[in-house]
Amino acid sequence: MQKKAIILFSGGLDSTTCLAIAQSQGYACYALSFAYGQKHHVEIERAKQIAHSFGVVTHQVFVLPLEQIRGSSLTDGDMVVPDYQDGSAIPNTYVPARNTIFLSFALAWGEVLGAHDIFMGANYLDYSGYPDCRPDYLHAFETMANLATKASVEGQQFKIHAPLLKMHKAEIIREGLRLGIDYSHTVSCYRADRMGRACGKCDSCTYRKKGFEEAKVPDPTIYYGV
Amino acid sequence: MQKKAIILFSGGLDSTTCLAIAQSQGYACYALSFAYGQKHHVEIERAKQIAHSFGVVTHQVFVLPLEQIRGSSLTDGDMVVPDYQDGSAIPNTYVPARNTIFLSFALAWGEVLGAHDIFMGANYLDYSGYPDCRPDYLHAFETMANLATKASVEGQQFKIHAPLLKMHKAEIIREGLRLGIDYSHTVSCYRADRMGRACGKCDSCTYRKKGFEEAKVPDPTIYYGV
Repeated sequence: MQKKAIILFSGGLDSTTCLAIAQSQGYACYALSFAYGQKHHVEIERAKQIAHSFGVVTHQVFVLPLEQIRGSSLTDGDMVVPDYQDGSAIPNTYVPARNTIFLSFALAWGEVLGAHDIFMGANYLDYSGYPDCRPDYLHAFETMANLATKASVEGQQFKIHAPLLKMHKAEIIREGLRLGIDYSHTVSCYRADRMGRACGKCDSCTYRKKGFEEAKVPDPTIYYGV
Repeated sequence: MQKKAIILFSGGLDSTTCLAIAQSQGYACYALSFAYGQKHHVEIERAKQIAHSFGVVTHQVFVLPLEQIRGSSLTDGDMVVPDYQDGSAIPNTYVPARNTIFLSFALAWGEVLGAHDIFMGANYLDYSGYPDCRPDYLHAFETMANLATKASVEGQQFKIHAPLLKMHKAEIIREGLRLGIDYSHTVSCYRADRMGRACGKCDSCTYRKKGFEEAKVPDPTIYYGV
């Protein structure tokens, strides 16, 4: 029987590449997105389109009340998503415990589906310093997950796959192109408009632009206001 | 400044005792409940009343789509909550990854509030064998949590408090009575009716009843159909 994988899937560049990698490894793919009150909720519509084009088994969208928790410029109307700034500070686009919440839902859904492989596009090199993208964190989540469920007690091992973890953005793009991805449909921008056009200036746009430059391939992103 | 604690709070016997303990330790208490599609959703109304009577700082109720994940008789209309059965099998009232999801939300909310102490009423002795109530699991969650957040990077340590972990139900009840709890308002039953009356036969009722018997105090629970 084909092994099942859950893919945390935002419809952005990284998670779309991650989905393509999981599919290339022969997994039956279950894409999982979250409508968590993000201002750039156009990503959910794009995620639906992309998931459909990949022919995933299911694309599930869970609605989560993270905008009630606030504490991030991605969800809080009183905070502004900033332009990219160089430096080591964790930017205010950090969403408290977001990956822990997302992975917890993947774990629950995975247990019910019998999908013990969970893929996510976490990226430790060209990223914003989010703590929940670091290798140590992912390892600790996996350890916890393997104590958390009835499936674990019954001998199943969950595995968190982060195939992009140690790739630079340009390498991710090259790998995605090799796998046939059309990146023009993906939305990475934290300030994407309703059409999915990108600001070109936020952290996420900055890393993505630089990736296309360094990969020496045309950037298919449509930008507004630049 | 008074230290803040988040208390996972279902309105049942254990979590109400846990709230009383946190309060007795001097914490400013933030109660956290989840409307997750549980059939016994009367517990949410009771939780609101009890939290109010304790004078908590805030009682937050998050709505989570666990009924879309299914896999538990507590949320799935096609599964029946069984009567208590002796044995070591994990019963179908187990909700996939529930405590991981609940603790993840506590972590997120705690980070925003500046509440780094998270209390939960997990109970390892008179319980149904749920994997996510075991000491090893809770320890692994705490380790993961301390790698997951911006607060952790900035030097804050989160602590998961499970003060009931190694107490028998009778001891929990005695401790709660000592702290002044009126258990008649708490709802533990998995098949509670809209009035909050208990079936007397499910796992949760069985452990609770036995607890009152062993504590040699009157059981204030109102049962239906027995």
